[in-house]
Amino acid sequence: MKPAFLKGLKLGNLRLREALDRDLLRVEALVRDSLRADEPFIAGLTETVLAPPGKRLRPILVLLAAGRPGASSQAAVLAAAVVEMIHTATLLHDDVVDASLHRRGQPTLNALSGDGAAILMGDFVYSRAITLLVEAELTQVLGLLATTVHRMSVGELMQLDLRDRRLLSEEAYRRVIYEKTARLIEACCASGAILGGAAAGVAAAYSDFGRNIGMAFQIVDDVLDYEADPAVLGKPVGSDLAEGKQTLPLLLAHAAAPPAGRARLEALLAAQDGDAARQEIVELVRSLGGTVAALAAARRYGEAARAALAGLPAGEIREALDATVDYVVERER
Amino acid sequence: MKPAFLKGLKLGNLRLREALDRDLLRVEALVRDSLRADEPFIAGLTETVLAPPGKRLRPILVLLAAGRPGASSQAAVLAAAVVEMIHTATLLHDDVVDASLHRRGQPTLNALSGDGAAILMGDFVYSRAITLLVEAELTQVLGLLATTVHRMSVGELMQLDLRDRRLLSEEAYRRVIYEKTARLIEACCASGAILGGAAAGVAAAYSDFGRNIGMAFQIVDDVLDYEADPAVLGKPVGSDLAEGKQTLPLLLAHAAAPPAGRARLEALLAAQDGDAARQEIVELVRSLGGTVAALAAARRYGEAARAALAGLPAGEIREALDATVDYVVERER
Repeated sequence: MKPAFLKGLKLGNLRLREALDRDLLRVEALVRDSLRADEPFIAGLTETVLAPPGKRLRPILVLLAAGRPGASSQAAVLAAAVVEMIHTATLLHDDVVDASLHRRGQPTLNALSGDGAAILMGDFVYSRAITLLVEAELTQVLGLLATTVHRMSVGELMQLDLRDRRLLSEEAYRRVIYEKTARLIEACCASGAILGGAAAGVAAAYSDFGRNIGMAFQIVDDVLDYEADPAVLGKPVGSDLAEGKQTLPLLLAHAAAPPAGRARLEALLAAQDGDAARQEIVELVRSLGGTVAALAAARRYGEAARAALAGLPAGEIREALDATVDYVVERER
Repeated sequence: MKPAFLKGLKLGNLRLREALDRDLLRVEALVRDSLRADEPFIAGLTETVLAPPGKRLRPILVLLAAGRPGASSQAAVLAAAVVEMIHTATLLHDDVVDASLHRRGQPTLNALSGDGAAILMGDFVYSRAITLLVEAELTQVLGLLATTVHRMSVGELMQLDLRDRRLLSEEAYRRVIYEKTARLIEACCASGAILGGAAAGVAAAYSDFGRNIGMAFQIVDDVLDYEADPAVLGKPVGSDLAEGKQTLPLLLAHAAAPPAGRARLEALLAAQDGDAARQEIVELVRSLGGTVAALAAARRYGEAARAALAGLPAGEIREALDATVDYVVERER
């Protein structure tokens, strides 16, 4: 059985790819095992939560940074499982906050089982992730990830606050996506480096790499919301706008627009006029070059991530991380 | 300034009461300090969350069990702050899950600022509580409280599953209230005992005490929902029923009812017919002796808690815990 979770990540090194696959199966098994519940109701919800396979970007980064893909320590597998669980818990809550009905081409848990079930399952998954770290006595990783989760909630609250504001500054946008997305990806790399016993300089390079691909990852996500094929995206185009989220393509389109285009964008945003207005915003953002400019910004973060790789020892892991940059920046559109 | 948080707890020992008050002010300050945020939006939400003073039962239990009220160690104050934060986070999520609009006589955060803000503030408060324990390196307490939080989410999920079922068994009811309420109160006593360096036998007696007053506490809460003055209760009578929750007064009324009363109760529950039906259920439960019988069950847990106190050294702390039993069982109705 080929696990689906590496879809799109082009690893030329087949041996490494198979090694990662083996570790990811261990991660997957540990996640399932940890979320096992005696109560059929909870077990059913867990099934629903775990069914749509994610990209597994975060556990892959932990495993690569820990330095022994294919023969990862139990601690690295556990940390990889924990970051995936934290990510899952965050998605469960975000989908309730945003009233999102689709993710990864599937109905969300809140759509299927109600907001209450999704909120409580988020708590269930997140608190289990913490107990896993406590039981394994991974103190340093626990400290890092606990702080990360706290800052992610700050990022989500900032985003909620900025929703439907007149027009975001690019700086506010970057702060939000750092807290809500890039921090966890940074922490994945740092956790792996800690568990792999990396020297301080190497660990810092890993954090630097993670922060930058984290930023790139979120920006590409925000671009996809403007231009992906909905069938590939797994949710309708323009969802962010519908949720009152102003993302980089919009901000850059606005900044680059001639006065008339700028006025039109502002009027459409102020009116909040439903599907037709949203469709016009999406088209304006594209035609004003907002998505192209945002993608260029993502590529710059990608290049910064690549530059950070210079701080790592040469070898197949560094090459795989390089391929991860391509994957993050160029993934399906 | 007299802190309001001991209202209703009758401590004959005035010196001890003042000592506890001093510690509780330290707890209060630590909670506020830990939840401080640079973002005005988050700071405003925090204010709203912390404004209505709770009963502070949980931190009081930590401080008493730690054994040095008035001169509590920083670790005991921190653990007391953490259990209050965990409790607060749980309430924030529960109020969204139950769509509750009032608590402690105030509008809930979900009523004031929306479900999204309440969900994310719950995550914010809970994750901060965990980082406090990690930073203070209170490993044993962290292990206990992390597991407790996870089990509380299991209890809440069980309760969600049982909502609107035909008729709960008393056993299912007791399991739910143990997980969702009594476990945290048990963990408060155990945490205090750990931090106070109690011997194993004493720590076990503390857990036993906590579990039993925890059960009593929730049953009394459930009785209050049937018969309290709404002005004192801070929310309408019959809220549990409106949320589809079957609690002990109903289960015991049903068990004790003659066939006609039982059939009437079942018909009313099955119809789910709004305010009038609910009012009739509330009156039936009272007239069938459900609240009196549930209160007797709470008193039995209270007596079991008192019996556990025999395992503690005699002295003013044991007397204060004895007074806590009275407070829990006899609080305002």
